[in-house]
Amino acid sequence: MASDEFDIIRRYFNAGTLAFPSAEVALGIGDDCALLRPQSGMELAMSMDLLQESVHFPSAADPFLLGKRSLLVNLSDLAAMGARPLCFTLGLCLPRVDADWLEGFSRGLAEVARANGCPLVGGDMSGTQAGATTICIQVQGEVPAGQALRRDGAKPGDLVFVTGTLGDAAAGLGVLQGRLGESLSAARREALLEAFYVPESRIGAGLRLRGLASACIDLSDGLASDLLHVLNASGVGAQIDLQALPLSSALQAAVPTREQQDLAVSGGDDYELCFTAPSARQQAVQEALTDAGIPVSCIGRITAQKGLVWQQSGSPVSRQWQGYRHFVAAEGER
Amino acid sequence: MASDEFDIIRRYFNAGTLAFPSAEVALGIGDDCALLRPQSGMELAMSMDLLQESVHFPSAADPFLLGKRSLLVNLSDLAAMGARPLCFTLGLCLPRVDADWLEGFSRGLAEVARANGCPLVGGDMSGTQAGATTICIQVQGEVPAGQALRRDGAKPGDLVFVTGTLGDAAAGLGVLQGRLGESLSAARREALLEAFYVPESRIGAGLRLRGLASACIDLSDGLASDLLHVLNASGVGAQIDLQALPLSSALQAAVPTREQQDLAVSGGDDYELCFTAPSARQQAVQEALTDAGIPVSCIGRITAQKGLVWQQSGSPVSRQWQGYRHFVAAEGER
Repeated sequence: MASDEFDIIRRYFNAGTLAFPSAEVALGIGDDCALLRPQSGMELAMSMDLLQESVHFPSAADPFLLGKRSLLVNLSDLAAMGARPLCFTLGLCLPRVDADWLEGFSRGLAEVARANGCPLVGGDMSGTQAGATTICIQVQGEVPAGQALRRDGAKPGDLVFVTGTLGDAAAGLGVLQGRLGESLSAARREALLEAFYVPESRIGAGLRLRGLASACIDLSDGLASDLLHVLNASGVGAQIDLQALPLSSALQAAVPTREQQDLAVSGGDDYELCFTAPSARQQAVQEALTDAGIPVSCIGRITAQKGLVWQQSGSPVSRQWQGYRHFVAAEGER
Repeated sequence: MASDEFDIIRRYFNAGTLAFPSAEVALGIGDDCALLRPQSGMELAMSMDLLQESVHFPSAADPFLLGKRSLLVNLSDLAAMGARPLCFTLGLCLPRVDADWLEGFSRGLAEVARANGCPLVGGDMSGTQAGATTICIQVQGEVPAGQALRRDGAKPGDLVFVTGTLGDAAAGLGVLQGRLGESLSAARREALLEAFYVPESRIGAGLRLRGLASACIDLSDGLASDLLHVLNASGVGAQIDLQALPLSSALQAAVPTREQQDLAVSGGDDYELCFTAPSARQQAVQEALTDAGIPVSCIGRITAQKGLVWQQSGSPVSRQWQGYRHFVAAEGER
């Protein structure tokens, strides 16, 4: 059995499968700081995400899948900037030492780290008197100076695109919590669960969108919430066609049409990219992604008129959606 | 009152006092990633620290002082590498929205951020169903390539130094918890509390030790534990003179001699630097630090013989100390 934090780090985290060497990492785990050697002409992109037991994942979550998911959701932020992953750091608060959990979690991290060339280089570990596991990951990546895909570049007339399909992860969480999907085939249940636990890495999409997309964001809180960040940052509005939202066959089999739209619009955790591009680049965008096997759909258009308008059969619909926001419930009436 | 995570970030964290502009920060709070523009020829130093309520700080901790401390303990890792601070990221899990706490905590962060030229550039925030606040900070700094102060460079014959005084922070925690210091003057109680809450930033010391120190670490878990990391990384041993340990007058007034040594050797949280340097550089080291008003003491010598030997009046003493290690208690018998 692991006996203290240093043993745990040595055994599960400072292993060659997870903390592997990389050209840009001058010094990894084991000193006061890790040292990165960025290439000249590059900007360093950084993003931190917290995952809390009972808030972001259920207590019974499979540790291997949770490990994969924890790193994938962070890499999604690099993808949204068009950055190439370099390395990550891990903060872990554990209520107890559970060798099986640590083995599965670190193996899940390692699988995603290796697939994305993104080794673990440092972090911190702590016991906790609160009962919940907390995972904090920061990813570091690089992007040529001035080429990052930001939120503030959308222009009126640009088209709005998303990668993959929407709503699957929220449906997967419903399956996991026993709220839906009882009549689904095993394969479709599995597809939805997989969408929740193991979002696609869209790093390749982000790299291919450099020079093509005018703005980009990853969908963590749901399209309704995340697209608004792009619109607000860019000072524009958008019209989105509900019928153009890409829906998987598993989602369509799982819930009625209206609920499919709800999950696609306001369900979180898809970690697909939502981006804008001038209409003159539509063909280039679609070729760049589909040539790499990345599904992409045009779902609407940026408008000079601010606000987000949802349309169906060419007419605005009056339904309102909102993504997940922390602390809203705690405040009572709003 | 703050109403959701975006309002909280806007109100308390994305303020000019905390998220101020900096030459190396190309993009701060508000996108999927922050973007850093490192100077060419520099390595990027990164360190992450977790602070958990009830583990690293008491629930009743003053939020302003806690904010200062949270960033200072992270900056200490940059100091130990000889790195200059560039920016930091913040992950915050909060059991509730408390405007007074957020105001004080962010003001404490801002004071230290400004004093060290280290703005907040991003992070994440989450509610939690566990009752405890968790603070995760990652600092980024830069150091000329190849000049970082690492743990693995100590050589037999090198002298061992520490900055400041030792044991004060552990005594301060004792005062805070009502375990000691009842007979102390108000000024001395204050000095010990201050040592716990607001460790000195040793960034200036780290910068001055580039090219002089052969190895360096910051003292977070206590001298006995942290010096061992240097010895193990360097493959050497050390003899440390207990009588040479620098003790403040407040610590000497607070507890008997034997306990002063215990706190200086195994009490954590001092965040002073412990470093080694060839004896030929002793004068240069002492001038470089004392000219900048930084107290420094020579406390022993590196030996080829492995192991850490504590000496008093020239003779080894048999007492054993150990620093704080997470998860040891959870494992029962060892």
